Amino acid sequence: MEAATVDSLEEWVAFLRLPNVTTQSTADIRANADWIEAEFQRYGYDAQQLADGDTPMVYAAWPDLSPDRKTVLFYAHMDGQPVHPEEWDQESPWSPVLKTAGGDVLPLERLLKGEADPDDRLFARSAADDKAPIIMLLAAMNALQAEGLEPAVNIKILLDSHEEGGPRTLGDVVTRNAGLLAADAIVMLDGPMHISNRPTVVYGHRGGAGFELTVFGARTELHSGHYGNYSPNPAQLLASLLSTFKDDCGRVTVEGFYDGVVFDEETKAAFASVPDDEAAINRRIGIAEADCVGASYQEAINYPSFNIAGIRSADVGASRRTIIPESATAAIGMRTVPATPPQRLLSLARAHIQAQGYHLVDGVPTEEERQTYPRLAYMTKGGGAPALQTPLTAPVGNWIVTSLTETFGEAPVRIPLMGGTVPTSGLRALGAPIMLLPLVNADNNQHAANENMRIGNYYAGVRALHGLMLTPFDDSTEEKDN
Amino acid sequence: MEAATVDSLEEWVAFLRLPNVTTQSTADIRANADWIEAEFQRYGYDAQQLADGDTPMVYAAWPDLSPDRKTVLFYAHMDGQPVHPEEWDQESPWSPVLKTAGGDVLPLERLLKGEADPDDRLFARSAADDKAPIIMLLAAMNALQAEGLEPAVNIKILLDSHEEGGPRTLGDVVTRNAGLLAADAIVMLDGPMHISNRPTVVYGHRGGAGFELTVFGARTELHSGHYGNYSPNPAQLLASLLSTFKDDCGRVTVEGFYDGVVFDEETKAAFASVPDDEAAINRRIGIAEADCVGASYQEAINYPSFNIAGIRSADVGASRRTIIPESATAAIGMRTVPATPPQRLLSLARAHIQAQGYHLVDGVPTEEERQTYPRLAYMTKGGGAPALQTPLTAPVGNWIVTSLTETFGEAPVRIPLMGGTVPTSGLRALGAPIMLLPLVNADNNQHAANENMRIGNYYAGVRALHGLMLTPFDDSTEEKDN
Repeated sequence: MEAATVDSLEEWVAFLRLPNVTTQSTADIRANADWIEAEFQRYGYDAQQLADGDTPMVYAAWPDLSPDRKTVLFYAHMDGQPVHPEEWDQESPWSPVLKTAGGDVLPLERLLKGEADPDDRLFARSAADDKAPIIMLLAAMNALQAEGLEPAVNIKILLDSHEEGGPRTLGDVVTRNAGLLAADAIVMLDGPMHISNRPTVVYGHRGGAGFELTVFGARTELHSGHYGNYSPNPAQLLASLLSTFKDDCGRVTVEGFYDGVVFDEETKAAFASVPDDEAAINRRIGIAEADCVGASYQEAINYPSFNIAGIRSADVGASRRTIIPESATAAIGMRTVPATPPQRLLSLARAHIQAQGYHLVDGVPTEEERQTYPRLAYMTKGGGAPALQTPLTAPVGNWIVTSLTETFGEAPVRIPLMGGTVPTSGLRALGAPIMLLPLVNADNNQHAANENMRIGNYYAGVRALHGLMLTPFDDSTEEKDN
Repeated sequence: MEAATVDSLEEWVAFLRLPNVTTQSTADIRANADWIEAEFQRYGYDAQQLADGDTPMVYAAWPDLSPDRKTVLFYAHMDGQPVHPEEWDQESPWSPVLKTAGGDVLPLERLLKGEADPDDRLFARSAADDKAPIIMLLAAMNALQAEGLEPAVNIKILLDSHEEGGPRTLGDVVTRNAGLLAADAIVMLDGPMHISNRPTVVYGHRGGAGFELTVFGARTELHSGHYGNYSPNPAQLLASLLSTFKDDCGRVTVEGFYDGVVFDEETKAAFASVPDDEAAINRRIGIAEADCVGASYQEAINYPSFNIAGIRSADVGASRRTIIPESATAAIGMRTVPATPPQRLLSLARAHIQAQGYHLVDGVPTEEERQTYPRLAYMTKGGGAPALQTPLTAPVGNWIVTSLTETFGEAPVRIPLMGGTVPTSGLRALGAPIMLLPLVNADNNQHAANENMRIGNYYAGVRALHGLMLTPFDDSTEEKDN
């Protein structure tokens, strides 16, 4: 297996050289799809593109699917988050750089020859999220081939092309290809492992509900001397409005926001069993104190959250002007849990804004609206993706836990709900239980500058998938439509 | 006088074609200085550049200064605020465009031939603030020449090169050239006329005190799914912090902010005599209700103000990412009044931030600070300019009021304190009383996109200056060091 893993490193690096921000270039995404389809075919696997407008997805499979074996559909995504190249400590997010744990740059050859230290890291957009798992799958299958082994499950793979941005068409693609993609279990390879870096299995994820909120002042920017104290400042109004969403400790104060969120004894026990070290987390991310939403990190991410992803109003720094801005905008990203679906949180946010005295408009206010309402705001319609919770007792979970325990000689960390959002809703039409198997280091700077993948995790990920492919899956007690 | 005014329009347009953002190009400012110095010389006036590093100022004067006449120093500035060209409804802020009151573009020739309607406007950066008054001075002096008249006062002119940005060196230049600039009165041609567009005289101005405030979260951006509800969001914290600076009605809630601001009967009477129409102001700027700092617009701007000039934290719109930002920054511009000097307001703001639980750092926090303090903020040192209040009974005010009344046949609007800030502090070393004579229309979009000057105001401004130059000034009861 080691040789197949080392062989795959060149493909990993080559894959990372392909820019993959769907919202910026569909041509880039097609290039990714063409490339990975060809790679799977080159090694003898079935592979084809699944048409989806300008951004095809890719399907691949072990060539001999047997009705005697259960079928597992692995999911990962090819696309990455937008980048701000100037924030990266390297020439380009698309030119992978190998570094030591201390940050010293190493020649890439060291990685490609299989000589990298487990603590070295490869830096590039999507190095971890989510191209590494795709190449790990290829490496694990190649290892089986090299060893002359047949997998204990039928292996299918679906590679999404716009998980990080662009239209969410996964559901349509799945529905159109339901026969091809039919499976007894779905394993999503996305998101980070537990911070302890121990093998991790995740039974669900939070959902998402985002919108943008703009507060309006006067029709145009105004001179702050002539109108300061007179014309309401929309940045000040937005700040005050946003301040009503949370208390000083980070708890959401929107009425009803947490309604229905209760944890049973089994879930509380699972929280307690996760080997979190909050002091270490705080040191790692550089904070003195966490928000006090939950009694622990695990409990915190089992609540819905309200997050300001960005704020913009006029300018700061060298371009600042002595004006009252004409508007101020906040990008809001909420995370949902099964008890608090996206549409409910969006409705609560809307009602909360109105309860603060705002009249909601449909874009830029009309003159009549400006003359009529002292407080004007525009809240975009927003969208959402539901949370997922597979029961902690489900056979599909037991299958993965058993395999990981055998591969690594220790029981994996079992996480009831991960904090991030994974587009499982599009896969639910297949009617198979869904589990998440994160394989990348938690400190990978996912979605941000200097995204990276720890080399030791890459090797361990191939082992995990190789082991899982060789573990028979018995779902005889599985509820199919959970 | 009409002919000299029309002749000057070509010079006004030519002057506006010269970019003049000091903070972006000192070469541009030198080009402005060279050009205007040559113009004054071309018509036979004394003119010279006053060295000031890379951005010389310009001095000009009527050639025959007589000891029998009082000397008046007119001040204006050549430089303009930074521009965002994409926000302008024309090709470039440096390509002046003539438009009707309805916004239809007209050929520039119409202006240059003296055929523009009084309600037409010329759009360009500094069209109003503050190049128009400079060319008006030239036109008024040329009218005197054409009429064969001697002015009743000695005319001196000082043109600043970085009023809108860059180092405030006016005081140094004045001190180095105190003899050359010596005067019995200083008349600053800056700021807008009263909204009624009636002739206006202003006895003082608010000061300014600006700083930038940055609140820090974790060391880097974090994935909002994995850390939302756990790692404090600096944009949320900044919003909550800023919300504590003002109540829902726009009144500053910082302890002591308004201390010492009291209005005597004379000042209250002056407020009442200004023909403001708040309903009309509200319609014009597009708001339903003003902040409730003062009982009237005039009272409002006689209080110090706290204004958010901009906020930035990560991204909104297409570039938004699903992250918790690492920091959030607000640009704060305060306006001061004589009773509340800049350093006092800066100290109060600093104390207020600390009273909200913030530890103030000197830039980016150190690791130790991150691990020690739950709330970290950086407040730049900030700078300030003092307010000015010339007594409402001063002879210099009476001189201007008398002249304007004679020129226009009605008493001017007398404003105790204008809301904006003018760099009078640099001129105070001359020991002469300072008055402000605004000559540009109030709705000129000063400092913002689509700055413009109403043509009727341009003509009236030349008349006002021409009249003032012909009115003897008697300061026998003036207190020289007010």
